[in-house]
Amino acid sequence: MTRTIVSSHKQEVVIGFDQPFCIIGERINPTGRKKLAAEMKEGNYETVKADALAQVAAGAHMLDVNAGIPLADEPAILAETIQLVQSLVDVPISIDSSIIDALEAGLSVYQGKALVNSVTGEEESLERVLPLVKKYGAAVVAISNDETGISTDPDVRFAVAKKIVERAQDHGIPAADVVVDPLVMPIGAMNDAGRQVFHLLRRLKEELKVNSTCGASNISFGIPNRHVMNAHFLAMASVAGMTSAIMNPLHKEELDGIRAADTLNGVDPDCMAWIKANRDPAAAGGEDAAGGRRRRGGRRARSSAA
Amino acid sequence: MTRTIVSSHKQEVVIGFDQPFCIIGERINPTGRKKLAAEMKEGNYETVKADALAQVAAGAHMLDVNAGIPLADEPAILAETIQLVQSLVDVPISIDSSIIDALEAGLSVYQGKALVNSVTGEEESLERVLPLVKKYGAAVVAISNDETGISTDPDVRFAVAKKIVERAQDHGIPAADVVVDPLVMPIGAMNDAGRQVFHLLRRLKEELKVNSTCGASNISFGIPNRHVMNAHFLAMASVAGMTSAIMNPLHKEELDGIRAADTLNGVDPDCMAWIKANRDPAAAGGEDAAGGRRRRGGRRARSSAA
Repeated sequence: MTRTIVSSHKQEVVIGFDQPFCIIGERINPTGRKKLAAEMKEGNYETVKADALAQVAAGAHMLDVNAGIPLADEPAILAETIQLVQSLVDVPISIDSSIIDALEAGLSVYQGKALVNSVTGEEESLERVLPLVKKYGAAVVAISNDETGISTDPDVRFAVAKKIVERAQDHGIPAADVVVDPLVMPIGAMNDAGRQVFHLLRRLKEELKVNSTCGASNISFGIPNRHVMNAHFLAMASVAGMTSAIMNPLHKEELDGIRAADTLNGVDPDCMAWIKANRDPAAAGGEDAAGGRRRRGGRRARSSAA
Repeated sequence: MTRTIVSSHKQEVVIGFDQPFCIIGERINPTGRKKLAAEMKEGNYETVKADALAQVAAGAHMLDVNAGIPLADEPAILAETIQLVQSLVDVPISIDSSIIDALEAGLSVYQGKALVNSVTGEEESLERVLPLVKKYGAAVVAISNDETGISTDPDVRFAVAKKIVERAQDHGIPAADVVVDPLVMPIGAMNDAGRQVFHLLRRLKEELKVNSTCGASNISFGIPNRHVMNAHFLAMASVAGMTSAIMNPLHKEELDGIRAADTLNGVDPDCMAWIKANRDPAAAGGEDAAGGRRRRGGRRARSSAA
């Protein structure tokens, strides 16, 4: 059974088909967040701090950290942000950049076994990112596109994923340390986006036997009631074989979806996480009477202990 | 591609892997509803009427009708109820009884091609129900248990389903007219209930190539926040291959789950059903401004037309 193990200085997280779904908090990312970008550029990390704490309190098992700010010193900012986040929370980090120097700067300060986000099937990416992943003993997100772009044929995307896994092995990185992102398209733009991804996820699980992740909220881009759509997408994708997602853990709908999926996938023993998260707060005694955010902690603790 | 076609005197419904998920309204059933049982026994059908209209208005594509009342004349009451329901709504009916005479009484008055609910893998059931199904040209729900009870091994349940499909064929009933119920156990009592059913549904789709249904709400028996759990169960089951469910269509959560599943399974062209159901009522013009119940009609119309 494939298990991707990542860690911080204090905590280990296991991603796998027999594990609770791994929630990777997406919030620390200045893309599309002008205020955050401006803050990070001038060395103000107040929003980063708040986002780190809130996401972990809400139930994130890992945090994605991105510092992609135009005309800024991305390697320095990424390294600084990672050190700050590691000083605040115990969860492992996904180091997110398209710039090799930034990935290396982040890896060089990171304490633990990081998830590098990401390598693609493009020759240059393969030959520059994979040696770094090997050097630092990290795991890596493999995005299933290459020089020809993103194929609309899921079987072509599978072939790209397979190429990346094989190339990683050539570099001494085991398949268990490659987490494939099958690329989720907006369902509003491509009617077949869901079915395609489910098909691809199943091949990734059964043929390549690798873990998977995605930017989940992309599925609902441009359509109404996004959180409910995201929640059902996550649950449905988990049946097809998806084992983690880079997502916003601050919404009840998506958390409900992942908790229901864990219960129905048989990785929530005696439904205890579901019951804990859903029992009437008024009826709950002791520390749990504090309310929703407090109660969510249970899932993280369970998963981290796995 | 397997298609189970059922009909009323006015409407045809297609159940299939390339169709929107088929919602079979469960409410007209006196089991566990003392007031309804007492009313039906004394010939008062006011609740039946209200339940028929409300379920169809909410989006049910079919209605299940059951008249299982202790010490009552079930065949007469079932036949009367079916005639009444057919006079009120246009959707096809699932005729639900464990008593052969009641099934025959229902079939004898039914206008259209009914779904008979149900036959099991028990010898007596097979040899008494299947000839009736053939005689009236109906479709049939096949429940995957036999004389030995309900196996906890999904592969044994698959074997029972296979036996029923083969026996139906011996009686001249095509496999496309057999809709298998894999039997859903409460997740609170059996931790593996979800995973088991998903595994079985996939075999039913890929190996037997038959449609499937279930009593969906059973999954959440005894646990909190049932509607949200049911909603995600339905969506997850649809990925595994479930094409219909006998369920309560009167709750927003379950309808959201099925609508999201249809969209993500690629059977909601241009997300129109999702958008229609989820756009801001305040922003909607014309007849749809009337509110939620009105707007739900769109899905039914789409499905019936398929």
